[in-house]
Amino acid sequence: MTVSDRWLLPDGVEDILPPLAGQIESLRREVMDTCQRWGYQLVIPPLIEYLESLFTGTGHDLALQTFKLTDQLTGRMMGVRADMTPQAARIDAHTLHQEGITRLCYAGHVLHARPQHMLTGRTPIQAGCELFGSASEEADLEVIRLMLEALRVAGINEVHLDLAHVAIYQSLIEAAEFDEQTEAAIFDAMARKSIPELDQLLGDCPPGSPGALLRELARVSGGRDALKKARKAMAGAPKTVLRALDQLQRVSDYLKVSHPDLKLGFDFCELRGYNYHTGLVFAVYVPGYGDAVGKGGRYDAIGQDFGRARPATGFSLDVRALVALGRHQAPRAAAAIWAPADPDPALGATIAGLRMTETVVRALPEDVSVNPAERGCDRILVKRGGQWVVEHIGAC
Amino acid sequence: MTVSDRWLLPDGVEDILPPLAGQIESLRREVMDTCQRWGYQLVIPPLIEYLESLFTGTGHDLALQTFKLTDQLTGRMMGVRADMTPQAARIDAHTLHQEGITRLCYAGHVLHARPQHMLTGRTPIQAGCELFGSASEEADLEVIRLMLEALRVAGINEVHLDLAHVAIYQSLIEAAEFDEQTEAAIFDAMARKSIPELDQLLGDCPPGSPGALLRELARVSGGRDALKKARKAMAGAPKTVLRALDQLQRVSDYLKVSHPDLKLGFDFCELRGYNYHTGLVFAVYVPGYGDAVGKGGRYDAIGQDFGRARPATGFSLDVRALVALGRHQAPRAAAAIWAPADPDPALGATIAGLRMTETVVRALPEDVSVNPAERGCDRILVKRGGQWVVEHIGAC
Repeated sequence: MTVSDRWLLPDGVEDILPPLAGQIESLRREVMDTCQRWGYQLVIPPLIEYLESLFTGTGHDLALQTFKLTDQLTGRMMGVRADMTPQAARIDAHTLHQEGITRLCYAGHVLHARPQHMLTGRTPIQAGCELFGSASEEADLEVIRLMLEALRVAGINEVHLDLAHVAIYQSLIEAAEFDEQTEAAIFDAMARKSIPELDQLLGDCPPGSPGALLRELARVSGGRDALKKARKAMAGAPKTVLRALDQLQRVSDYLKVSHPDLKLGFDFCELRGYNYHTGLVFAVYVPGYGDAVGKGGRYDAIGQDFGRARPATGFSLDVRALVALGRHQAPRAAAAIWAPADPDPALGATIAGLRMTETVVRALPEDVSVNPAERGCDRILVKRGGQWVVEHIGAC
Repeated sequence: MTVSDRWLLPDGVEDILPPLAGQIESLRREVMDTCQRWGYQLVIPPLIEYLESLFTGTGHDLALQTFKLTDQLTGRMMGVRADMTPQAARIDAHTLHQEGITRLCYAGHVLHARPQHMLTGRTPIQAGCELFGSASEEADLEVIRLMLEALRVAGINEVHLDLAHVAIYQSLIEAAEFDEQTEAAIFDAMARKSIPELDQLLGDCPPGSPGALLRELARVSGGRDALKKARKAMAGAPKTVLRALDQLQRVSDYLKVSHPDLKLGFDFCELRGYNYHTGLVFAVYVPGYGDAVGKGGRYDAIGQDFGRARPATGFSLDVRALVALGRHQAPRAAAAIWAPADPDPALGATIAGLRMTETVVRALPEDVSVNPAERGCDRILVKRGGQWVVEHIGAC
């Protein structure tokens, strides 16, 4: 292994340097503070857990995305968290175990075995909120509105919100009773919105049957008027489907009033990425970025799996990706003050005082010929008449 | 696997719940802000790296502490960081590659294969500062003083600072030219301050020889006057040893003036935990806590290993452990305001305004019989004469 090889970082893994690191830290704090002002309390879930608890109630995708490691103390398999949402659900159901409504928020690194997106790589910084104990549409709306607020804090105002409902596809596919292989093929074709494939797979289903309705789903998805089209096409569908469509209608009606500038769409085909979701789901897109900048939805199932059924909804976003979009205005760090290497105790005292509010960089012996401006300083400490005073660099 | 087994977290791994999570976040921010006011710039090193770069320049201990995992993209072995200091050194030498002095700070989770201490478990939250490019004692002093300042921010004022110098033991053991096995036995006996074992191992060395001086080291360590004793005992030692003792003298003389209340000690035996260190090292202890609450020192060697020799010194501490000591006064979160579930748009607007500075928890349909005080609220939004106003809970 040569010297330069040693320095190579794995694909999708990066050092975050100044000033980017500071911008990420600043947005992370602002997003967490916003969530807390909405009543969400901070939790810090662990970086690793046993695989069983990481995966319970979640799908196959999350298992593929999770780095596995062996616990030297017990020999059991552990995983590095790939998603903090199931961890928050475990905390709500088991560790906190509160009655009534619990609101939690979190922010931290997660690790993906394969990069999901160029901007996030394999070490996204996930921030999110989860609301447990309410099955109401008001709860769904609260997390959508809080997500939009977090995006606004990140400087992202013009967004496109896609709404969907996992129960629509799920109840149709269950009612259709296909064999496992056909079901997987339909799921795949649906996710790729491949109308020809769906026609081939479902073309023989009699009109009005669950299979035929599934075939319609891909056709009506995507546009602004998708919901209207879906309600028409699904008129004869099972009650679960109709209830889900009603719910989408009410939520979108509400959002049209509360967020008149929001671009709303409906997508019944986007099934990947909604691993553990069970109800209303949503994703936010911005022009020029192919992946969702924030997403979430209802996932009442996880609690059930663990023996404590708790309704749950939430959202998460990637702080690193949001900063990469370049619209967040981090509070500009004030330029620093340069202090000479002079051992005068009075200088030390002056620096200590200044550092309560200012950044002071103290010269070291190696700094003899340094230009303070190149170190980000716009002012300098100088001795005038026996007193240490701050002067602008131009002035001295 | 039963339901309750699934919930078990691995030993030394824990959920951090409210309000503790908020206290840790608060201290993390304060420590990072302090470092930045001293001119240290934030970096975010990656959670995982190839093993070669994680371990380069570091000792065997770090390799044992590191969780290994396989990169699915390349088949190469990676590790989850167990210490962020070598990562900062890599960033300085390779990624940033600046001329002159570079000051970096960082904070984040690290992962240990085995718990190092009860309070930190296997997922400590490491925060630290590293100063690259200065071989001066001023640099060593700067990081010691900054560490003391960070501890003060954490509410930890009465501390005991142990100073030592890795070069003293290193140059004596090299000069003595023992075989590997004897060297390992001496290292082990020294770390345990086992005078009988050292007498047995080194009793035959002629007076004044490196072996005899090593034997003296354990005897003179520990107390307040250890440095005076060491200088006397090491009078005939190699120049490197004498220079190291001189340096310890100057640094402790300086600290006696700048921090008159600081309790100073010297320990030449504490060799474990100084994996990659090369010069002046230090550790801070507080009464009632067995492990160091902060430590660091000089590690000029890592850069050399990578072909870019950079003097380096720094410190790190565990934010989780500091909060557990219970002396940090986190700014008390103001109690929240409870808002009813009323769909009135005027209420929504009032809440949005309040949330710029206040925490507002909005009731959901399930909250019918909730007592807002039990949800941390001391005020409530009520409608009086068509206007939404905030009232103290006692008043309404």
